[in-house]
Amino acid sequence: MTTVTGDFDVVTAVDRQLPSVERACRMPAGFRAGGRAAGIKASGRPDLALVVADGGPAAAAAVFTPNAFAAAPVRQSRTVLTATDGWVRAVVSTSGCANAATGAAGDADQARVGELAGAALGIEPGEVLHLSTGVIGTRLPLDRVEAGLLDLASMLAATDDGLEAAATALRTTDSTTKAATVTVRLPGPDGAARDVRVTGIAKGVGMIHPRMATMLSVILTDASASPGVLAAALRPAAARTWNQLSVDGDTSTNDTVFLLASGAAEASELEAGSGALAGFAGAVEAVARDLARQQAADGEGATCLLTCQVTGAGDDADARAVARAVISSSLVKAAAHGKDPNWGRIAGAAGNARLADAAVLEAAGVPPAEAAARAGTAAVLDTERLRIAIAGHLVFDGAAGGPQPFDPAATRAAMGGPEILIRLDLGLGDGFGEAFGCDLTEAYVIENSEYTT
Amino acid sequence: MTTVTGDFDVVTAVDRQLPSVERACRMPAGFRAGGRAAGIKASGRPDLALVVADGGPAAAAAVFTPNAFAAAPVRQSRTVLTATDGWVRAVVSTSGCANAATGAAGDADQARVGELAGAALGIEPGEVLHLSTGVIGTRLPLDRVEAGLLDLASMLAATDDGLEAAATALRTTDSTTKAATVTVRLPGPDGAARDVRVTGIAKGVGMIHPRMATMLSVILTDASASPGVLAAALRPAAARTWNQLSVDGDTSTNDTVFLLASGAAEASELEAGSGALAGFAGAVEAVARDLARQQAADGEGATCLLTCQVTGAGDDADARAVARAVISSSLVKAAAHGKDPNWGRIAGAAGNARLADAAVLEAAGVPPAEAAARAGTAAVLDTERLRIAIAGHLVFDGAAGGPQPFDPAATRAAMGGPEILIRLDLGLGDGFGEAFGCDLTEAYVIENSEYTT
Repeated sequence: MTTVTGDFDVVTAVDRQLPSVERACRMPAGFRAGGRAAGIKASGRPDLALVVADGGPAAAAAVFTPNAFAAAPVRQSRTVLTATDGWVRAVVSTSGCANAATGAAGDADQARVGELAGAALGIEPGEVLHLSTGVIGTRLPLDRVEAGLLDLASMLAATDDGLEAAATALRTTDSTTKAATVTVRLPGPDGAARDVRVTGIAKGVGMIHPRMATMLSVILTDASASPGVLAAALRPAAARTWNQLSVDGDTSTNDTVFLLASGAAEASELEAGSGALAGFAGAVEAVARDLARQQAADGEGATCLLTCQVTGAGDDADARAVARAVISSSLVKAAAHGKDPNWGRIAGAAGNARLADAAVLEAAGVPPAEAAARAGTAAVLDTERLRIAIAGHLVFDGAAGGPQPFDPAATRAAMGGPEILIRLDLGLGDGFGEAFGCDLTEAYVIENSEYTT
Repeated sequence: MTTVTGDFDVVTAVDRQLPSVERACRMPAGFRAGGRAAGIKASGRPDLALVVADGGPAAAAAVFTPNAFAAAPVRQSRTVLTATDGWVRAVVSTSGCANAATGAAGDADQARVGELAGAALGIEPGEVLHLSTGVIGTRLPLDRVEAGLLDLASMLAATDDGLEAAATALRTTDSTTKAATVTVRLPGPDGAARDVRVTGIAKGVGMIHPRMATMLSVILTDASASPGVLAAALRPAAARTWNQLSVDGDTSTNDTVFLLASGAAEASELEAGSGALAGFAGAVEAVARDLARQQAADGEGATCLLTCQVTGAGDDADARAVARAVISSSLVKAAAHGKDPNWGRIAGAAGNARLADAAVLEAAGVPPAEAAARAGTAAVLDTERLRIAIAGHLVFDGAAGGPQPFDPAATRAAMGGPEILIRLDLGLGDGFGEAFGCDLTEAYVIENSEYTT
């Protein structure tokens, strides 16, 4: 799964291997998509997207924000998934207005978006999933959304360009359009293998912090699977990727990931426990991981991606907690910006690592009873066994007395690239986890103190 | 306890009243103190402090960081408190070097500091408590500490100036010397009342985040109390004040609060459950709260104090969690810097509020079984009942449809002072909590990306 650098003498093996990812929109069969500017954003940039399953309802799974102020589109999507048992026809996304903290009026607005999308597409409003992102507390301009949807519905295409247009219309403060594709071979009913695509689009890039959530992402596949099987693939993938992503410590009101399967590749339906499902789940995780890395790298004000990989933990839950703590630390993030190999801040952050709440631990595979007991407790560390390497340079080895001599100039130089890799080996077991963040810069502060309410 | 502004129609009563605080060093009877430059800091600023109980051992209580990388002075102090049953003679503090993540050699260095302090003061090394703050991962310059202690021991004074010198020598990146004093009248054994002083000194101002910890603080009193009674006063005070303080989300390896009682005011010994103890505990809390506010206001790079008061919560634990979430949000902090009444970010942060871990909840008065069950769970909020006011301006009222019309220019102007007060009323009960932070500025990033390792 990860490139092991030679910075520790003893490297704990990482036992999972994810397929390689292409950073491009490759439209799976069975969908059409598009995006355009509808005037929701004052800037005139694209702000309205549609994805439609052509051949009837697609199986769907979702992960939503746990924020108590979950926005109207989140509440609406939950209702749709419950009412349809996870079989939907379309996703509509508005950007520039979060439709969060807008009360009952906001819920009514979002329901109206579903009606407008349904009318434009000739499907039932109750088959439409919702995404929205932007400023909290403002109402959607329904007249513009209506005009935009009518126009956009006629422009949808079953092409890479159509999906790219949708991905572009998800963006807010993103500086890049984010997409990732993996193709896997899955068996078909006639015994011949089929190429199945798993393609994700996503937006970042602020108010991002790990907890069962990300910002917006839609993953499309032409695999064939039930909603329950899709959820079984999506949840652990999100736990290992988006739940390990932090830009600024704030969990949004609108965070949503959808995974939709059209079945149009005519591969056999994925069965729980099968090898084919394992291969598919790996593709979903590879897409999710790559999108999370794109989001982190494009974090507001960021100049570099900050990746922390933790090996040798007592279990994966501990490893993930430590990795999250390191990339979430304001002091580590500021040091990354200054190319300062300040390992004391890394050790301090690791020493504060706390396991997530029970829901996150369960999503990460911890049994429910154990998850309840361990929720919020400290990750297990032994300062006498810990080793820390920054950008390939060993800086701390607890078993060798602690601080290690290293070449500051060479380490600073190694921190100068587009990604800084911080590795910790806890020396306790074979738990592995990684987390993705970015440096903290003056530009983040300027962007977020000047942002219009 | 708090000044109620007229920004809500219905104000939930706050039932506790703390005594007023003087921001000055007023040395309680029975102690001598001093500080000087010993050359630990390259800057030549004061970096070595001593506080000594003159009339024999003083009763002591402490709160320490939960960081797994607790520094050598923290480990040494824990050992001393255990071995002495909480009766100590002195506190020694070094600034500029944290003596954290320095392994067994660092522990030996810290033990040597105790020996040097004991020799300089003519007391047992095992009666000396330890504080240290500064860069992580570097060793203490013991030769300089030794020379400094010998010199400093002869300069100690039972005066306000002596305590001020000690307070100054605690500082690292602090721009101010932090002190707070409350005088309370407590009964004496002869029936006549005595003036008892409670005086705290403290340092901030980075790597500060609430969890059973603060940065360094020493509170001295000439009250008479056992170590157990002192702990009963200190722990809830810390839970309501320092545990509600966040500058940057990082919990230090060295955070320590000591409360030392000399008994020299000749008031009666404080008894558990007595009215006198309640009065004393209020004084301790008032000192702790004021020091926490000084630390927040002097947060690295900060230009204003950010206070969040939450009323109407289901209980105090919920209220404190919501207050902490708001003042810890990078987006709220950046908006405070930009004087942007961005209430959507406040609502979003409140919606993410999670209760602390079981130890913090117990310190806040939650029964142990309930603390275990609620640790890490979401604070209870109802968006239909929430009201939010920024700097005296009502901006959100869930029961009145949500967003409220307000005057942006007047609100921005009201945010221009040295303190921004954000109030939330949850409309659910009578739980109260507050938290203290600061704005997030470009200067924070610059200071922490250029800081020398």
